Amino acid sequence: MLAAARTAFADRGYDGASIRGIATAAGVDPALVHHYFGTKDALFVAAVQAPVDPDDFLPEVLAAPPEERGTAVVRMVLHVWDGPGRPAVLALVRSAVNHEWSARLLREFVLAKIVRRVVGSVEMPREEREARGALVASQVAGLVMMRYVLRLEPLASASPDEVAAAVGPTVQRYLTGDVALPGRRD
Amino acid sequence: MLAAARTAFADRGYDGASIRGIATAAGVDPALVHHYFGTKDALFVAAVQAPVDPDDFLPEVLAAPPEERGTAVVRMVLHVWDGPGRPAVLALVRSAVNHEWSARLLREFVLAKIVRRVVGSVEMPREEREARGALVASQVAGLVMMRYVLRLEPLASASPDEVAAAVGPTVQRYLTGDVALPGRRD
Repeated sequence: MLAAARTAFADRGYDGASIRGIATAAGVDPALVHHYFGTKDALFVAAVQAPVDPDDFLPEVLAAPPEERGTAVVRMVLHVWDGPGRPAVLALVRSAVNHEWSARLLREFVLAKIVRRVVGSVEMPREEREARGALVASQVAGLVMMRYVLRLEPLASASPDEVAAAVGPTVQRYLTGDVALPGRRD
Repeated sequence: MLAAARTAFADRGYDGASIRGIATAAGVDPALVHHYFGTKDALFVAAVQAPVDPDDFLPEVLAAPPEERGTAVVRMVLHVWDGPGRPAVLALVRSAVNHEWSARLLREFVLAKIVRRVVGSVEMPREEREARGALVASQVAGLVMMRYVLRLEPLASASPDEVAAAVGPTVQRYLTGDVALPGRRD
């Protein structure tokens, strides 16, 4: 079931995948999938093998005043990575960098479970959401790479407060500031 | 010789490694290393298996007016990644994410050959260089991750001009702007 779920979420995205379709691919009854995992959302978290559920952290970020949302995002990411789940999150990132299907799955997870909800919580024209979300993700992913993977100083050992003070304004600008937004090229 | 060079650069950094030490570790005469590779710098590029030599691109970045240096950095990175060397650069990043020694080697390469030279070309107090360089690296690395590894839209397909217009100001702020700089924690 998990293998079928991974394929479905990676190929069709979170919105496109269905419990019915995953059950069919796994050769089981949809009721069985519901029985084991409950919701599609819970199945998604299990399929990605996410060591933490963004639902546990995101409400705090979304409750921050709009003008502090950028710093709140950085604080949340540092909280997760500085916590006991770090080895598992790092394994997830390694897998995504090594395997195309894993990259698609992680991208879909980060988009559906985190980025779209952060961006959706800020007032902005609908057509700006995708670009602002991608820019936020670019700064956050790079911070993670430098602090936790390449361990570049002073980012590797600086306190979460200092990192949030330095990088938060960038995330804030991408969320609510004046940015020349890129568009898809077809 | 290359294996000994990789170990030396990863363990001791670019400045700390010497051709003499590398030759001793490889059990050869230093003159032989010079004969094959010329300078320590060329040996470094060979050891990292860098598909491109930053020396080929950096002068153009450093020649940009100080207030456009941020955009110039982004343009250079996109130029390298959008060029024929992409598979080789991607292999380098994958290796760094997978192996601790490879991460140290890539970190040292990016620092010594790119970051320190970009940061050193901008007028700033000496004690700010490390932090500003790390922040620049964080945004650039994240952009690369999103555009080329996770392929997140619209960053994946946007034109280099659009990406540079959106992300360049962030790099510029890290280089010359008003930033609460983080420090190493001992």
